[in-house]
Amino acid sequence: MRSALYTGNATIVVEERPAVPPAAREVQIEVAYTGICGTDLHILHGDMDHRVQVPQTIGHEMSGHIAAVGADVNNLTVGTPVTVMPLRWCGTCPACLAGHRHLCHRLDFIGIDSVGAMQQRWTVPASVVVPLPLDLPLIHGALVEPTAVAVHDVRRAGLRAGEKAIVIGGGPIGVLIALVARSVEADVVLLEVDPRRRDIADRLGIRTLDPTRDDVPGEVAAWTADAGAAVAFEVSGSAAGITSAVELLAVRGRLVVVGIHSKPREIDVFRFFWRELVMVGARVYHRDDYETAIDLLRTGAVGAESLITHVVPLTDAAEAFDALRRGGNVMKVLINCQETS
Amino acid sequence: MRSALYTGNATIVVEERPAVPPAAREVQIEVAYTGICGTDLHILHGDMDHRVQVPQTIGHEMSGHIAAVGADVNNLTVGTPVTVMPLRWCGTCPACLAGHRHLCHRLDFIGIDSVGAMQQRWTVPASVVVPLPLDLPLIHGALVEPTAVAVHDVRRAGLRAGEKAIVIGGGPIGVLIALVARSVEADVVLLEVDPRRRDIADRLGIRTLDPTRDDVPGEVAAWTADAGAAVAFEVSGSAAGITSAVELLAVRGRLVVVGIHSKPREIDVFRFFWRELVMVGARVYHRDDYETAIDLLRTGAVGAESLITHVVPLTDAAEAFDALRRGGNVMKVLINCQETS
Repeated sequence: MRSALYTGNATIVVEERPAVPPAAREVQIEVAYTGICGTDLHILHGDMDHRVQVPQTIGHEMSGHIAAVGADVNNLTVGTPVTVMPLRWCGTCPACLAGHRHLCHRLDFIGIDSVGAMQQRWTVPASVVVPLPLDLPLIHGALVEPTAVAVHDVRRAGLRAGEKAIVIGGGPIGVLIALVARSVEADVVLLEVDPRRRDIADRLGIRTLDPTRDDVPGEVAAWTADAGAAVAFEVSGSAAGITSAVELLAVRGRLVVVGIHSKPREIDVFRFFWRELVMVGARVYHRDDYETAIDLLRTGAVGAESLITHVVPLTDAAEAFDALRRGGNVMKVLINCQETS
Repeated sequence: MRSALYTGNATIVVEERPAVPPAAREVQIEVAYTGICGTDLHILHGDMDHRVQVPQTIGHEMSGHIAAVGADVNNLTVGTPVTVMPLRWCGTCPACLAGHRHLCHRLDFIGIDSVGAMQQRWTVPASVVVPLPLDLPLIHGALVEPTAVAVHDVRRAGLRAGEKAIVIGGGPIGVLIALVARSVEADVVLLEVDPRRRDIADRLGIRTLDPTRDDVPGEVAAWTADAGAAVAFEVSGSAAGITSAVELLAVRGRLVVVGIHSKPREIDVFRFFWRELVMVGARVYHRDDYETAIDLLRTGAVGAESLITHVVPLTDAAEAFDALRRGGNVMKVLINCQETS
């Protein structure tokens, strides 16, 4: 079978590899689609070489069918459409013992810390497999994982119907957060500098502002009757994003940290005191978030169609990464893992 | 009557002033004791000259008896022991309309933004008066306001029985937070650099560490079985305090911002993401916090006796500020407003 491997030095190579037969309590999945995540780009750029053992197949946003089942797997059968919740926890560290297994001190994030889904057949523990409903197209199923991230972020915000929320950063996760926020009947504005990303959000009916051109504080003041926003999602990973979020929040407003901040950020801590603001970290998801994500994609509340801008054959995986790296009119790029041109 | 006035230039002057008769919906209080708060020191140092109109009587931690009652006051009678919750809100701004009146956009903090309690007779709106139980000595009643701050901080943390909490900074508010945390059966460690402040906390049975000498991360790891603390209260107002708090928190830990940070602080936002930490601002109090504070002082759960290190006559107010400014073996300084030496 074919597999796309990160080999270090910003290189993706597609080569022939033997498929791994499923051991006890494992299943082998015939992968349909694997999405490229921002984290995969970070891996390509070498930012995560301390976690990735080259050469390694990466990728963790996926869908497929069960192709083979190992011993002692009773709840999954060949042919079942599935996705994967790519977290393996230790069960014994303080985080696991406190019930926060998704924040396990020794978390194995499958596709980063271990072998991922950009290949034709992927063998994983049966415990991480999540069945998909038959009426969800597999091409949409590849969006369950990033949608679950957005669901988790919105839950961490405690976002309620009628509240006003700002999303800072309009990449796939930012747009998904805006859609999930809308699904709980919150009122959303998305801040994004790239006009092509704003266009995609506009087509999904999301109100957008351009922080480089629009008077964001003035617009937010008018929108919220001078109160400020109840919630801000910082998805840009930028220092300016954090500063804006703190400025734009109402008394008791909640700032959800979604983006990766590679450096410490200067934060107006006095304003946290003065307005009794709250900053909340949000990372990955629970199984509940997966179930909600599946439902939002199945019902169309999260419109996968508008988010998927590119689908490329597995053999063109390197070009797919290049397209994403160059930016432009690109949102979610999927790799068709069964198509080998 | 005598009144202690801040006249600018780091100066407190005690002089004869006419007592203000209570207008409709006002009462005049014969002030027994007024405490000196860290904020009063900031006022003396000129840090709050944009809010204080000199010459102005300051002070907002107090106790006394109702001395006279204006028209249309039905719930208070002469002789009743009282304290004051020194907040006057507008009722019409977005914060008030959202139910967060203590965070009113136009809050009048009485004793800072308007005339305070360091005088023999103080006239205030009846609406800010809080009756005290007859079995609470008035000298302890002067600690209700700072104790209510600590109660509010502990509530904002959502601190539960059995949780491990770190208090960074052992001044009066830090020690009060430690005592209130203990009253909800949390397990507390106080970090304080000043050995005399540590002594006072030790005498109250609070475990202390010296961040300049002790291996705080090692001690916290041993204490929490490598989990980290569930809650950290940042009361020092220092950059190091914020950094330590973020380092010492467990997965899903809560950092409560109590201290005043005059500058933005560099914060490890990635750790907020990675551990799903929460940072919560906490400012002043609600009426509920006052009721709890009164109860904690009345039952001795908060031992006022050990916290009050100095009681000085009103005529020595300037010297009292000096003692506090010099530091040393000093915790809470009260001014006896009826004693004029």
